[in-house]
Amino acid sequence: MDVRIIDLKKTILEDNDADAEVLRGELKREKTFYLNVMSSPGSGKTSSILRLCAILGKRFRIGVLEADIDGDTDTVTVLKAGYPAVQLHTGGMCHLDAEMSRQGLREIGSADLDLVILENVGNLVCPAEFDTGAVMDLVILTVPEGDDKPLKYPLMFEKADVILLNKTDAMEAFDFDMAAFRENVRKRNDTAEVFPVSAETGEGSEEAAAFVERAGSEWSGG
Amino acid sequence: MDVRIIDLKKTILEDNDADAEVLRGELKREKTFYLNVMSSPGSGKTSSILRLCAILGKRFRIGVLEADIDGDTDTVTVLKAGYPAVQLHTGGMCHLDAEMSRQGLREIGSADLDLVILENVGNLVCPAEFDTGAVMDLVILTVPEGDDKPLKYPLMFEKADVILLNKTDAMEAFDFDMAAFRENVRKRNDTAEVFPVSAETGEGSEEAAAFVERAGSEWSGG
Repeated sequence: MDVRIIDLKKTILEDNDADAEVLRGELKREKTFYLNVMSSPGSGKTSSILRLCAILGKRFRIGVLEADIDGDTDTVTVLKAGYPAVQLHTGGMCHLDAEMSRQGLREIGSADLDLVILENVGNLVCPAEFDTGAVMDLVILTVPEGDDKPLKYPLMFEKADVILLNKTDAMEAFDFDMAAFRENVRKRNDTAEVFPVSAETGEGSEEAAAFVERAGSEWSGG
Repeated sequence: MDVRIIDLKKTILEDNDADAEVLRGELKREKTFYLNVMSSPGSGKTSSILRLCAILGKRFRIGVLEADIDGDTDTVTVLKAGYPAVQLHTGGMCHLDAEMSRQGLREIGSADLDLVILENVGNLVCPAEFDTGAVMDLVILTVPEGDDKPLKYPLMFEKADVILLNKTDAMEAFDFDMAAFRENVRKRNDTAEVFPVSAETGEGSEEAAAFVERAGSEWSGG
């Protein structure tokens, strides 16, 4: 059967892509490194961010943006841990765009920070569509989610600059094939670094933090 | 704890809302009624649309836009049933905006049609955020999904002009409280009509089609 198929021009996405580039220019001038953390709900974004803060917070001024459709639980957790944090309510939207990012960065005062970490809305689809203006996209997958997920969520894994495989402490309880996972990542992404970590035990956090720090140094030119 | 909360200005949504109004103006001039059908995956959007087509297609020129992230199964089904249909690929996005709508309407030739039915992407969250430019928003919920869903997906039920409760033929197998459902709908929406239907048996289709026809007559002014 002859089916007419229209691949819709993504006007909105193109506008956002352009704005995200402008935002990265602004951040470059401020020498602020902006890290976008994405994962499914419950994959340990907040606890992984706190692991990074505990290591990098000794030498850098860090702020955290918490994006959620509603609520403020994670912001309270970050504030209690002693880091500046601002809650962003997306008003029902499942993603953050560059302009929404910019409002959060302004509110937290990015010009006076070395590193701003964005905890994006928990979702493996929509957040990958919208460039937040971040300098680095960090994707967290967990062992219980399965080694096939790079195949099922292609765009998210294509977009990742770095991937944390979290909950490695639970590896024995699951049928997770690390070699298959790495192979599946490579089908989507030639370059992204993969760090097996446990936000629970702290394993792998130093390596991941060092990777972010190196990229941050390059960004701020020093 | 003192949490700073930013309700993000939805620049993108505001731009889209304005464009959707422009699109409705274009459709008004064409005297084309544009019906946006939304539901979760598997709630019977395609079969409900075919029920409407079977009744309204006798007197009106109908076309169907099938929006999906990928694939063309539903378009093939509609074409086989004898109605013009165009497949819209959203390229990974979980919703359709007004400009994406406009491209589909142009392709199917809305000026020469009385009614265009859009089968939106199967999702109870994102499609509710974006005004497609439709004259009427029709939401389908099914008995197996449960009578509490208007509370869990507030925006979708706020936005609905008309709600089909589908799969009523399976009512006895589920613990679905119709009075509670109607009450939950009213908590979100003062005016939306609710039609219990079965796309399987055809029950309720005449009433739902008559409702759409009346709205269409008002729209085209005759």
